[in-house]
Amino acid sequence: MKKLIIYSLFVFTIVVSIQAQVVTNLNLMPVPEKVKLNEGKFRVDESFSVSINGYSSDRLNSAVTRMVKRLTGRTTLFLKQDFLTPVFKTDSAKMIINVKREGELKINEDESYELDISENGITLKAETDLGAMHGLETLLQLLDADSESYFFPFVNISDKPRFTWRGLMIDVSRHFMPVDVIKRNLDAMAAVKLNVLHWHLTDDQGFRVESMVFPKLQQLGSDGLFYTQDQIKDIVKYAGDRGIRVVPEFDLPGHSTSWFVGYPELASAPGPYKIERGWGVFDPTFNPVIEETYQFFEKFFEEISALFPDAYIHIGGDENNGKQWNANPEIQDFMKAKNIPDNHTLQSYFNRRLAGILTKLNKKIMGWEEIVHPDMPKDIIAQCWRGEKSLTESVKLGMNVILSKGYYIDLNHITEDHYSVDPVPKDNSLTEDEVKRILGGEATMWAEFVWPENIDSRIWPRTAAIAERFWSPATVTDVDDMYRRLRTVDFRMEELGITDIKNYDMMLRRLTNNQDIVSLKTLVDLVEPVKNYQRKKLRDHTAFSPLTRTIDAAKPESMATRKFGKRIDKFLSSPDAENYNGLVNILSVWKNNEVQLAKIIQKAPALKEVEPLSQDLTFCANIAMEAIEIVYENKKASKDWVDSKMQELKDRKVPKAQVELVIIPVIMRLLNSISVQQ
Amino acid sequence: MKKLIIYSLFVFTIVVSIQAQVVTNLNLMPVPEKVKLNEGKFRVDESFSVSINGYSSDRLNSAVTRMVKRLTGRTTLFLKQDFLTPVFKTDSAKMIINVKREGELKINEDESYELDISENGITLKAETDLGAMHGLETLLQLLDADSESYFFPFVNISDKPRFTWRGLMIDVSRHFMPVDVIKRNLDAMAAVKLNVLHWHLTDDQGFRVESMVFPKLQQLGSDGLFYTQDQIKDIVKYAGDRGIRVVPEFDLPGHSTSWFVGYPELASAPGPYKIERGWGVFDPTFNPVIEETYQFFEKFFEEISALFPDAYIHIGGDENNGKQWNANPEIQDFMKAKNIPDNHTLQSYFNRRLAGILTKLNKKIMGWEEIVHPDMPKDIIAQCWRGEKSLTESVKLGMNVILSKGYYIDLNHITEDHYSVDPVPKDNSLTEDEVKRILGGEATMWAEFVWPENIDSRIWPRTAAIAERFWSPATVTDVDDMYRRLRTVDFRMEELGITDIKNYDMMLRRLTNNQDIVSLKTLVDLVEPVKNYQRKKLRDHTAFSPLTRTIDAAKPESMATRKFGKRIDKFLSSPDAENYNGLVNILSVWKNNEVQLAKIIQKAPALKEVEPLSQDLTFCANIAMEAIEIVYENKKASKDWVDSKMQELKDRKVPKAQVELVIIPVIMRLLNSISVQQ
Repeated sequence: MKKLIIYSLFVFTIVVSIQAQVVTNLNLMPVPEKVKLNEGKFRVDESFSVSINGYSSDRLNSAVTRMVKRLTGRTTLFLKQDFLTPVFKTDSAKMIINVKREGELKINEDESYELDISENGITLKAETDLGAMHGLETLLQLLDADSESYFFPFVNISDKPRFTWRGLMIDVSRHFMPVDVIKRNLDAMAAVKLNVLHWHLTDDQGFRVESMVFPKLQQLGSDGLFYTQDQIKDIVKYAGDRGIRVVPEFDLPGHSTSWFVGYPELASAPGPYKIERGWGVFDPTFNPVIEETYQFFEKFFEEISALFPDAYIHIGGDENNGKQWNANPEIQDFMKAKNIPDNHTLQSYFNRRLAGILTKLNKKIMGWEEIVHPDMPKDIIAQCWRGEKSLTESVKLGMNVILSKGYYIDLNHITEDHYSVDPVPKDNSLTEDEVKRILGGEATMWAEFVWPENIDSRIWPRTAAIAERFWSPATVTDVDDMYRRLRTVDFRMEELGITDIKNYDMMLRRLTNNQDIVSLKTLVDLVEPVKNYQRKKLRDHTAFSPLTRTIDAAKPESMATRKFGKRIDKFLSSPDAENYNGLVNILSVWKNNEVQLAKIIQKAPALKEVEPLSQDLTFCANIAMEAIEIVYENKKASKDWVDSKMQELKDRKVPKAQVELVIIPVIMRLLNSISVQQ
Repeated sequence: MKKLIIYSLFVFTIVVSIQAQVVTNLNLMPVPEKVKLNEGKFRVDESFSVSINGYSSDRLNSAVTRMVKRLTGRTTLFLKQDFLTPVFKTDSAKMIINVKREGELKINEDESYELDISENGITLKAETDLGAMHGLETLLQLLDADSESYFFPFVNISDKPRFTWRGLMIDVSRHFMPVDVIKRNLDAMAAVKLNVLHWHLTDDQGFRVESMVFPKLQQLGSDGLFYTQDQIKDIVKYAGDRGIRVVPEFDLPGHSTSWFVGYPELASAPGPYKIERGWGVFDPTFNPVIEETYQFFEKFFEEISALFPDAYIHIGGDENNGKQWNANPEIQDFMKAKNIPDNHTLQSYFNRRLAGILTKLNKKIMGWEEIVHPDMPKDIIAQCWRGEKSLTESVKLGMNVILSKGYYIDLNHITEDHYSVDPVPKDNSLTEDEVKRILGGEATMWAEFVWPENIDSRIWPRTAAIAERFWSPATVTDVDDMYRRLRTVDFRMEELGITDIKNYDMMLRRLTNNQDIVSLKTLVDLVEPVKNYQRKKLRDHTAFSPLTRTIDAAKPESMATRKFGKRIDKFLSSPDAENYNGLVNILSVWKNNEVQLAKIIQKAPALKEVEPLSQDLTFCANIAMEAIEIVYENKKASKDWVDSKMQELKDRKVPKAQVELVIIPVIMRLLNSISVQQ
């Protein structure tokens, strides 16, 4: 942080182009649009104070109070400022905040801010309080420490988002998530400048909203697990206080079994219906040809609209398999009479009827890409989850879109995979106006295999990297630097109650039956849950199945494996004693792990399923040890040896206990790199 | 668990007398009244199922569902029983529950149960569902594992509580505790059979209840941190579902500054008033001589009574310093006119007026021991917090009492200290009837120095031992066995969301600034926060002061020190190579810790304050190493050496960073045990 790299007279494009270099020493995520690092440190001591000198409001005051609270929590400083009393205005405070107006929770609102830290103090300027709140998070990310004290580096930051829609979808139907789970995730979202909570409130497996008008919805459709209207208001307020819009989703006309437990007469096939306990795509679908359906939705959405102030309501629309429609003669007759050629067009008819109802309530529609149809109004937003094709088609039809394909965090991909996906397709043939209709994107946390104990570990820290993709300039793409910053972002989320780090140990502790977790952790650090939809295929799960197994504790991305891979690469490029010994130390631990873990498993039956993995680890460590010795001693391996080991590694790559030992590909890479005697 | 020790024809007293021996292999806390351990294991597999064959209700069904959920969470078994659907009745289930009637949430309700586990299955019988719920917790505590599977040991348990009032008080005024903090602690309370949440809702530092009738109470008196009426109803229901009564406390007439911010006219001195930010006893007190006070309380308690169904309301009554009363001429005139000789009698007048209001609302009064006065009605409950004297006096006056003196968990005493306190004073002169008026006790979690992040670590696991004191026969007093069981109870509470174990690491992680916590943990494992009221004296704190320092992370009891002390004792009684080497290993780690930790502190300014403690640890390790060498080699120490080292240890015993290095007394004990050359 010692070099003053950029002078402010440099123009915008230059600033962006050296972005990656500038942020190398900082821990900002998302990376701001422009950062100018200067020489010097603003030291934080007990005299730290804040004054809100422009527009102020309860929302802004609370946000500042929370920022100061987090600052004292980290620094343990006993501040002199009495920060909970009504904010006083003074030019002599160490930090001056100047906001022009209240920000509206809507798309394309101004969220920009400017943050300057120098020997004169800290100033934060913004058009709206929404922008200022982003600036507060940036400030907290800038906090650093040396041997003397905590400090902020001198810096000039000018920042605004690339996309206006930066969302996280949370499915609370497959597994219910209590209020505190949603709140802590809203805090985490705000920390990385996400601004939309897409709340997937209903699905086959549970209806999670209290309706006074149709109380059987939650009484019969939720197992008692739903949000009261007061809790919904509380969460919407909590989100708004953090600059986050809440878009509720009512998935229609399919994914709707839970509605029909109380109101079977609205389905396209006779009941009775039970809450669905399995995972997949199911038949129950609303009947689009009876007027009762629309009368029901008129009353239902009137009630719901009052709970959710956002302009948009998400009507789902995905994965209607059409089976109930095909089998219902009344529906078939209706289609013939109205010249409706296929189910997609019938669904579009249903959607237009819903759009009519919602328009009267002053709401706009969004839905999964299946809702796109030339007949639909142009002001809908399509959420593309299957690929570029639907995104391109939709914007060409004049509709707005957001991208979710590539951001399916439930599929257990590594961070880098999501980070490399851009909402704007590469080499696209879109016009400038069409590109503008790409509003942003959303990470999707589908909840078949998460529950309150481990949902945070599926969302974070990977979603912070996705948040950067939605906020930062498209040129910010340095993967190694992203991982460096991700570690700190992850750590700092603990102060917001995020549990991914601490519940990892907790879940391992339970698996060991309260024995020492060291050997289990060594193993589980090196595995990842199976990717995509493999888990369902490998073992039948229902809503009752325990989510406390090794696969549930394991993180979606093994950072230990990433580090190991980097070490291997470094060793291969310079096979010196230091790099060799570093690897030997790691591999020795792995080699000895099986014996330790076997003792633990003796008293922990839930761990029996990982015994074969533990053996695989020993095997991998032994091969790797032999391979690095060959390289270190500048020898050659016999082709037979390499071939047989490669084959064995390949065989062992098959998932066990539904997890993958992800060091295997690294070791295969190592084997591929050593010299072979022909 | 192999010996069948007791035959059921043995009479009650014999069962009790060998209690401690029986439970040695089990992890039950509180220890049941009668336990008969048999030979054999009931193995838990996927066919495990439960049937509720007698009385059933939503409360019982939910409790059983939660039990099964915890069982699957621990065992990772995919059960065949579809446990969330309405409970079916069958005689072929693996576990049969038979309850006679719904239990009422009131004192002296039947909470007994009988649990039998044999090759024929599991049966749980109880008069009330409250008893059955205690039995479910006992069952979960019995779960054990061998290399084959999880199992329950064959056992016959017949159990009931010694005291009807087994409470935990949580102060939410000094630091507000959100709904999820209360809920997880209710779950933990139920796990150790506590049955009263005493909710300290108001104090000088915050009024935490939403009033519709007097909204300025929360609007001006809470900093926005209060429970809505819906949240209160939700918590009361949640508690009731777990067999826990909720007794709200409105601390009156003192401890009431927060009331007067909105309603200064009710105070005994003119306002305006501000929310109190400091800790201590303050002057603001309700004016007991104006009718407006009682008119206010009539309306207030009418509103509040509807929220809290329990028979009792706690009116506080403690620490009225009388200063405002002494200084108010109107009050002095009133006392003269009514022949009220002193403030205590005036407070009794105030209490009787309140009692009148509450009686009309069908509520009974409880309060801190200061409310006891011969003029007060006999059906009040006095909560004794200053000693045996008030307890004895109160029961002799015919009043009911509960004991809190000795259970002040905010004072950071070790578990053993609380465990040794019995609600019935030893060698008392009480009649049998008077002893019966001792209803039980309550642990008190005053919240000056706790917040959501570390409150669990102040409550648990110590309160589990207090819960045992309130439930188990008075003869259950084996301290070592209590500590053995406490470790498991603590571990198992993690599944209920209790954070004491995981937030310890989290808080250390923040203190290190995301560096390796090993060296810091080695040190903090050996310290305890200063005891009693020393913290206030050592440093000025307010409601804004950070509670993220080492003292806040440190646990009230250093289990590592306890273990070290046991090792020292063992070594002194048999100074062989094994015991010697075991100690050397520990002391070597301690000796080398300072260097490691110093590196961490370089980048963690919040840890600067523990540097002197780190040096003390090195010093202690060196002395201990020398001392055990002297013993091991059967030498003698010079008196000068012992004396000088003892003096140095004494000097270093002074708390630093408000924590005590509690190995110092152990090492002093070691020095006192070695042979000295005269």
